[in-house]
Amino acid sequence: MDFLNKEQKLIARFKALIGSSGRFIGDDCAVLPGKMLVTTDTLVEQTHFRLDWTNFVDLGWKAMSVNLSDIAAMAGTPKYALIVFSAPEKLYLSEEIISLYEGINSCARQYKTAIVGGDITRGANLSITITIIGQSHESGTLLRSTAQIGDVVVVSGDFGASAAALRLLQLNTEERTETVNATSSAFVIKHLQYEHCLQQFLRPNPKLEESWSLVEQTGNRGALMDTSDGLADALLQISQASNVGMQIDLHAIPIHEQTRRFAEANKIDPMELALYGGEDYQLVACLPENKWLDWQKESPIAANAFKKIGIVNDTKDIQLMFGNEAAYKLDPQRIFQHIS
Amino acid sequence: MDFLNKEQKLIARFKALIGSSGRFIGDDCAVLPGKMLVTTDTLVEQTHFRLDWTNFVDLGWKAMSVNLSDIAAMAGTPKYALIVFSAPEKLYLSEEIISLYEGINSCARQYKTAIVGGDITRGANLSITITIIGQSHESGTLLRSTAQIGDVVVVSGDFGASAAALRLLQLNTEERTETVNATSSAFVIKHLQYEHCLQQFLRPNPKLEESWSLVEQTGNRGALMDTSDGLADALLQISQASNVGMQIDLHAIPIHEQTRRFAEANKIDPMELALYGGEDYQLVACLPENKWLDWQKESPIAANAFKKIGIVNDTKDIQLMFGNEAAYKLDPQRIFQHIS
Repeated sequence: MDFLNKEQKLIARFKALIGSSGRFIGDDCAVLPGKMLVTTDTLVEQTHFRLDWTNFVDLGWKAMSVNLSDIAAMAGTPKYALIVFSAPEKLYLSEEIISLYEGINSCARQYKTAIVGGDITRGANLSITITIIGQSHESGTLLRSTAQIGDVVVVSGDFGASAAALRLLQLNTEERTETVNATSSAFVIKHLQYEHCLQQFLRPNPKLEESWSLVEQTGNRGALMDTSDGLADALLQISQASNVGMQIDLHAIPIHEQTRRFAEANKIDPMELALYGGEDYQLVACLPENKWLDWQKESPIAANAFKKIGIVNDTKDIQLMFGNEAAYKLDPQRIFQHIS
Repeated sequence: MDFLNKEQKLIARFKALIGSSGRFIGDDCAVLPGKMLVTTDTLVEQTHFRLDWTNFVDLGWKAMSVNLSDIAAMAGTPKYALIVFSAPEKLYLSEEIISLYEGINSCARQYKTAIVGGDITRGANLSITITIIGQSHESGTLLRSTAQIGDVVVVSGDFGASAAALRLLQLNTEERTETVNATSSAFVIKHLQYEHCLQQFLRPNPKLEESWSLVEQTGNRGALMDTSDGLADALLQISQASNVGMQIDLHAIPIHEQTRRFAEANKIDPMELALYGGEDYQLVACLPENKWLDWQKESPIAANAFKKIGIVNDTKDIQLMFGNEAAYKLDPQRIFQHIS
């Protein structure tokens, strides 16, 4: 229990309260009879987003995307979405809410998810809660708890970009003498050099297709989750749920050139951003080494969506290495805390 | 469109945006392939509840109950629930949140619903969003749009009690020199004469069993919804969705003796409370007269859970009568507005 933060301890108490149905809880989605997947997530103003950092269309896109990412984290297919808004008086039933809805809707369309209901209420702050109902892939359902010793650890893309964008926006807000917000063209032109980072933070894409090509290769024999709360958190969650350890080669963790440039310009360790940053919405998977090697031979394009960053071992720890040399230890207390 | 309020107009624009999947929207639940029902609803502090009017266990019960009421409104069976909390710093991960969860959990258990997931985040105000996944009854699914001319209009219980309790709490708050809140024993003893009203407002029960006995009698041949936004609203929604009118006998609308007493003591028309009050979480159903008569003969106990208050006709209006004499016209602009 010492690994658990306060939120995890509370969730443990909730699970004790609800008894047997707690078996559904612990992955990114609940897996229900009929191979139904369900997930729900909220974005709350000031906790998850700031309206001077995003426009409403992008905010809507992101709200849908981070929920779809939970379906991707189980290699499932999204089917239906329910949308709940709570909005302060000045936004309630406004054109901005229509823009928010347009963003949600365009992301839902892109990923073939039907919006089937919802609710709109007044509230002190803007919040968006989305529930997605999906279906497990016919090849299998990938849980967090099924990593095995000897598996390779692979990731679907680069890390730290979203965290770099968050810091860029924070710096911009602190320094702001100009009255530009993060979505104005003045801001965008000034920060065109960090476009990838801003895109990852403000308008991420769920890795659904990548998850399907993975599960077609592995079936149920692998572990998967998304990195919404950071790469470090994802590695810990998988290793705890699967009761295994990992050796991770920090050199192998993909970090975008813009993220490195931002880190250098601001004297931040890019590895800090990559490990503890959060909101990258990438996938981390563990799969048998032979399946990984076969996949690279048989479908190199699909396999190349993933990069190997380490192996699963029997240590119960996350050992961070630079090549063959031990680097520092992963700090389980440093969990990711969105914007606030 | 003139009948639509601002919220309904916005929903109409959302439906236009999302296109064909809008077909799922319009009832208390979305009815999805596989006869799956899904509904989601939020309770927001200051909009739907005040923490000086309720304790956390009752609040949790009510949050679950009002969502289960949406399943009852389709005569469905609830199966799974997802719970999202957004809580301010002082409540986040607190014992109060555990009490809230206990209330949700006890209501879920009572109505055989498994809690399978959720999310907890920080936010300026406390809000609780619950999503329920259910199953249509094997006898049929009752929509709002299937009332027919000649049907009888029946209701599952009394109206106006919740609205009386709301006014009692508002008066108590205005007059408060004493530092008692609505859940303290001092308050409860003082207002024991309105216990039914307070119970209906603070800890309502979803009319699930009543809905099942109804659908067993009618199959798909009837209309149903709950009265979360008031009896007047429910009658209007059914008549608009079914393209029919109704004649309602105001004398026949059940009003509890405590509600009448409160109305008299405070010089309010009890019919105002009953028609426009909201949050009664009763059912309003329309069913063929012969089925209604048969039901009363065959299962008088189950049938007696419902009272006839009117008939469906071809006028497109809601005609309010005192017996055979016209009373006033139902006012479609007076929609119910929770506590704020």
